[in-house]
Amino acid sequence: MTKRGLDEAGALAILRSELPDLARGVRLGIGDDAAVLRATQGEQVWTIDACMEGAHFLRTWLSAEDLAHKSLHAAVSDVAAMGAKPTAALVQLTLAPWLTAAFLRRFAREQATVARELGCPIVGGNLTAGERLEIVTTALGQVPGRALLRRGARAGDELWLVGAVGQARLGLLALEAGLAQKRPLAPYVSAFRRPKALLTEGRRLAGVAHACLDVSDGLRRDAPRLAGQSSVRVVIERARLERLLAPPFASAARTLGVDPVQTMLEGGEDYALLATGPQGKRPRFARAIGRIEAGEGAWLETNESLLPLTGGFQHHAD
Amino acid sequence: MTKRGLDEAGALAILRSELPDLARGVRLGIGDDAAVLRATQGEQVWTIDACMEGAHFLRTWLSAEDLAHKSLHAAVSDVAAMGAKPTAALVQLTLAPWLTAAFLRRFAREQATVARELGCPIVGGNLTAGERLEIVTTALGQVPGRALLRRGARAGDELWLVGAVGQARLGLLALEAGLAQKRPLAPYVSAFRRPKALLTEGRRLAGVAHACLDVSDGLRRDAPRLAGQSSVRVVIERARLERLLAPPFASAARTLGVDPVQTMLEGGEDYALLATGPQGKRPRFARAIGRIEAGEGAWLETNESLLPLTGGFQHHAD
Repeated sequence: MTKRGLDEAGALAILRSELPDLARGVRLGIGDDAAVLRATQGEQVWTIDACMEGAHFLRTWLSAEDLAHKSLHAAVSDVAAMGAKPTAALVQLTLAPWLTAAFLRRFAREQATVARELGCPIVGGNLTAGERLEIVTTALGQVPGRALLRRGARAGDELWLVGAVGQARLGLLALEAGLAQKRPLAPYVSAFRRPKALLTEGRRLAGVAHACLDVSDGLRRDAPRLAGQSSVRVVIERARLERLLAPPFASAARTLGVDPVQTMLEGGEDYALLATGPQGKRPRFARAIGRIEAGEGAWLETNESLLPLTGGFQHHAD
Repeated sequence: MTKRGLDEAGALAILRSELPDLARGVRLGIGDDAAVLRATQGEQVWTIDACMEGAHFLRTWLSAEDLAHKSLHAAVSDVAAMGAKPTAALVQLTLAPWLTAAFLRRFAREQATVARELGCPIVGGNLTAGERLEIVTTALGQVPGRALLRRGARAGDELWLVGAVGQARLGLLALEAGLAQKRPLAPYVSAFRRPKALLTEGRRLAGVAHACLDVSDGLRRDAPRLAGQSSVRVVIERARLERLLAPPFASAARTLGVDPVQTMLEGGEDYALLATGPQGKRPRFARAIGRIEAGEGAWLETNESLLPLTGGFQHHAD
């Protein structure tokens, strides 16, 4: 989200207040990774996500195949974060003037491959013309029992991270700096181009976690959302984050002139999952990076102090 | 769809060929008004639709309220055309720099009103920043039995029109010509700004019609789609269309320098329904405008001749 005009938090506050109460068949509306619909068996989750030239990527950064991969995994990641299995997707494509039939063919072919891998067939969509390529993907998913929500975290829970954070951000910084060809940066450029929705992990979390969301905007912005939705305090322990810091990542961050731990806090688009649950039930694939306490907000605990993690809920002055 | 770059028909042909076979739970994918998912009871239909500044409207033409109305009715019209009842919608909004909090509040407030009228609550969405306002709406619907498809028209059926065609186009022409204030044109400007999804009619057609689609791109483009999907010939009888021509409409068309019957053939965005079924079962609200025969393509029958209705399937030279 660029910082011109109305910002996301301001816009969301308006939409939440103006689009109220739900209806028959709808368990949960605005505010989670996906909406939750009551199904005859279990629940259905439903999300929409955008991948926009200019806002999310530059054309020179991503191939047709990268775009197919990234846009579908990004949408399906919301399904993963609800502990659901994808059912199908629809795709609205805005065709830019530069987009050729060959490009679209490569895009669609890779989309079909990715859809097969994710078990999420693309069953329709819509086409429009515009100045830039835009891919808006809506995905449905199915949960046998109850969907895993952002609300539900409890004081005493551990805070779990599943998957890496900050890698896609390093890749983005490398692309912005024109350094994508540098060998030590290549894995991070790949992380930006080909993030993975953690479907298996999401489904396994559904049995044990109390709350979950996907880290699409970075821990700094997503941890406060978890705190807000669960009405708890989220504490990220810096020492634990540092333990997850791989030396090549730290060195790549320094090459790009950024602090490694800050990058882990800022970086979204890896589509890691952030969950909470009882220590004794932590799955092997999850790493504890903090804890849940009574209170509010999201905080970073260092040796000396507790710093507020801001960025998730800035509000407009107007 | 503007005529730059890859056109819609070319793009659709590529997507259809590259995004193949469906999977568990999906009865019908690309090519109809909405995808059809098998539900435990009946079927679920699912569509996505875009309303884009620049491509579909200019900012000066539509108020925040008009946009809320038009974007939601346009999406729900696909649900209507499948004979379904809407369940809920998600909305992806691209916030243009000019969009203020006040504008968004008016938009969301009207969206909530329209959602209530349509029985289609907005249960979530996504936000992005961009150069122009874009509203992408995805809607789910439910059918107790089977969804009403584009395929299914049979030789011997009547061709039915439900609702008006060409009115929104006259309104668009009036706006483009800067004549929206002229009193005789006002109803058509309203038709463009506030089209109505024909939900009740769609559900009643589900019991009697053999095939149906909504006229979003004009009879000239949508009738060939019906013919193609049903593998039949669609014949529109000019004399019957002329009988539907109201004098104020004909006079407004002449004011704008266009032929009234051509406007009825060209005009989409009224979201009329085009259906087929046996003469004896035609509902009162449907008007017969032609017939279905063995053969292919869509044709306009005048006193002297049968003219092909082209425009639905133009192909690229490349």
